[in-house]
Amino acid sequence: MSRRTTSTTQVAIVGGGPAGLMLSHLLAGQGIESVVLEARSRQAIHETVRAGILEHGTVKLLVESGVSDRVLREGDRHDGIELRFNGESHRIDFQDLVGESVWLYPQTEVFADLAARREADGGDVRYGVSGVSIEGAETDPALTFTDGDGRESELRADLVVGADGSRSYCRGLIPEQTRRRYFKEYPFAWFGILTDAPRSSDELIYANSEHGFALISQRTEIMQRMYFQCDPRENVADWDDERIWSTLRQRVNGNGFELKEGPVLEKVVLPFRSFVQEPLRHGKLFLAGDAAHTVPPTGAKGLNLAIHDVKVLFEALDSYYRTGSTGGLDTYSDVALGRVWKAQHFSYWMTSMLHAAPGDSEFDQARRLGELNSVVSSRHGASYLAECYTGWPSPRA
Amino acid sequence: MSRRTTSTTQVAIVGGGPAGLMLSHLLAGQGIESVVLEARSRQAIHETVRAGILEHGTVKLLVESGVSDRVLREGDRHDGIELRFNGESHRIDFQDLVGESVWLYPQTEVFADLAARREADGGDVRYGVSGVSIEGAETDPALTFTDGDGRESELRADLVVGADGSRSYCRGLIPEQTRRRYFKEYPFAWFGILTDAPRSSDELIYANSEHGFALISQRTEIMQRMYFQCDPRENVADWDDERIWSTLRQRVNGNGFELKEGPVLEKVVLPFRSFVQEPLRHGKLFLAGDAAHTVPPTGAKGLNLAIHDVKVLFEALDSYYRTGSTGGLDTYSDVALGRVWKAQHFSYWMTSMLHAAPGDSEFDQARRLGELNSVVSSRHGASYLAECYTGWPSPRA
Repeated sequence: MSRRTTSTTQVAIVGGGPAGLMLSHLLAGQGIESVVLEARSRQAIHETVRAGILEHGTVKLLVESGVSDRVLREGDRHDGIELRFNGESHRIDFQDLVGESVWLYPQTEVFADLAARREADGGDVRYGVSGVSIEGAETDPALTFTDGDGRESELRADLVVGADGSRSYCRGLIPEQTRRRYFKEYPFAWFGILTDAPRSSDELIYANSEHGFALISQRTEIMQRMYFQCDPRENVADWDDERIWSTLRQRVNGNGFELKEGPVLEKVVLPFRSFVQEPLRHGKLFLAGDAAHTVPPTGAKGLNLAIHDVKVLFEALDSYYRTGSTGGLDTYSDVALGRVWKAQHFSYWMTSMLHAAPGDSEFDQARRLGELNSVVSSRHGASYLAECYTGWPSPRA
Repeated sequence: MSRRTTSTTQVAIVGGGPAGLMLSHLLAGQGIESVVLEARSRQAIHETVRAGILEHGTVKLLVESGVSDRVLREGDRHDGIELRFNGESHRIDFQDLVGESVWLYPQTEVFADLAARREADGGDVRYGVSGVSIEGAETDPALTFTDGDGRESELRADLVVGADGSRSYCRGLIPEQTRRRYFKEYPFAWFGILTDAPRSSDELIYANSEHGFALISQRTEIMQRMYFQCDPRENVADWDDERIWSTLRQRVNGNGFELKEGPVLEKVVLPFRSFVQEPLRHGKLFLAGDAAHTVPPTGAKGLNLAIHDVKVLFEALDSYYRTGSTGGLDTYSDVALGRVWKAQHFSYWMTSMLHAAPGDSEFDQARRLGELNSVVSSRHGASYLAECYTGWPSPRA
């Protein structure tokens, strides 16, 4: 009856996005075997457009672990951002304040680099896998799934890592009585566009206005990403180019600053949610990245947190396979969650400091301007923001 | 018919609390005449118990303007505070972080020093005045009132300053169409006690716990002030000593720290409100201190803001009487409000970071711990808090 292919590995990784591929790559560097199972095709992931602000620590890991140095050549180093409010821009100078930078490098390029590296190194990454099911996650993991070519497969592993994104199957394997879920939905969303226009600014502009928030970002010399706060129920079909540009103009233009406009190529409404599931470990199962936590995009923390999880988890696995010590595996959840909750707070802070919430009173609006003034007029306040934005030092560094 | 006494002065000051007396004192030092009208008796004000954390700038002004150096001898210099959460204390070391301190010195002592100084200098301060009414505030101010001894009086002045506290009569003189009021009521209050007990700590402890906020403060070697978050409708009569102490213990004790308890001498419920009226000037009328803005007590900013208003206003008046220039008077409102809104934000920040709000989700609570961790684990974050707490540099310094 059974035409099932059975194989074994040390670490089974569910999810072939940046978190899963990065972990597999790091493990391979230490001679630890892994198999990556990914539901989507490589092409489909590559076409998933996601923003990409990389913390200096993320860039360092990509480069030093040999994934690629393309981020240094093709990414744009940003030494600051602008906070714009009351019609005036205030630069947060990362280099001056904390001696760090971030890199603008789309997540899709991070994926491309990782997928290419894993392929070149002969990594076992299986795209287009379906019906993944895991038994014995607590003690003796066995994964069954249908391979991309239709073959039924079973994979036995020492340990399983759930890096399967915000709609994670793996996180559901942690029993209800041992897990805790935290959730927040924000009363607004981002309307995102891709436009065929030259750069309006060399750095990101985070704009607060009485009409709501807007973010001016960049993609290439001739294509730009911009976002503005909208109702979560907004339908992109209701927005023609003129309506989009007049909304952005109203929130950003003024005092000599003018957006460079062009045809709108893509439109999307991005919901704002915060989510955390704790703990990140149950028996032989470990969660990493979006599978365990999502943040609203304001702080640009999603990908960076995922990479940080994976770095901490890799160090724990490396130590486990080298010495048999489970110390790192035992503390993984707490160490990773320490940064997760800082990032949850930072994302909430940037969101609440820059957006207008429905039902805000005049006091709330004026206090928000008081906060923005407080931050930009204080070297300590600006440095605190810069440190959060560029990435906290790792507790293990 | 009229047995009215008529007199004239340069600056009429309504309100003889710390703001009004300080302004009168500063003006006298430059030979500028003022009359202070205060509804309460000197004794009654002296008996109004108010907390007192003085920013370094407030202490500097008290000492350097010759009010008194008693604050330096009898006040307690505090070089830090403790933030306590998850059962652990984290010190914010003001001296190390920003090179400043605050002084614990009750507001009632500030009043006593100012009242004594004004008396010794022959200042015209009238207590027990009633029925103050002002005509011509915009162009040609005339104040009528009943003196403490029952005499009907009229006072004509170049300018009027409304420093008449949170139930200000003067702020109502600014016409509705030219003023803006901002208001926020918080869904909790502070239950404050005075207790006959030794010090539990040398510095203030701001404690966040799953049961709510508590603040451990000091008064003398043998008498202490403590506060805990409560429902604004709480009735002090429902709270006996044991209920008070068990509430405080639950929020503060643990991991080797234990409150030193004693009989409760006073109990009071303090409501939490934020209020601002803008602008602070209308014609010949200027508002200062609580008359124009109140903050919740969490950031200990109320008295300090009032003194800052008065310092800015004094410099404007001094320049006006010396040179005839109205520049300082014209910018007074904007300059003072810049600090007011920073303080409104700081008070809101300390409040929301440390208190549990009714209806908070588990996410909100966990995010708050993420914020507290973020602040205490970052030198930049801790310095930002320390700078706000000890007082921002004055824009004119």
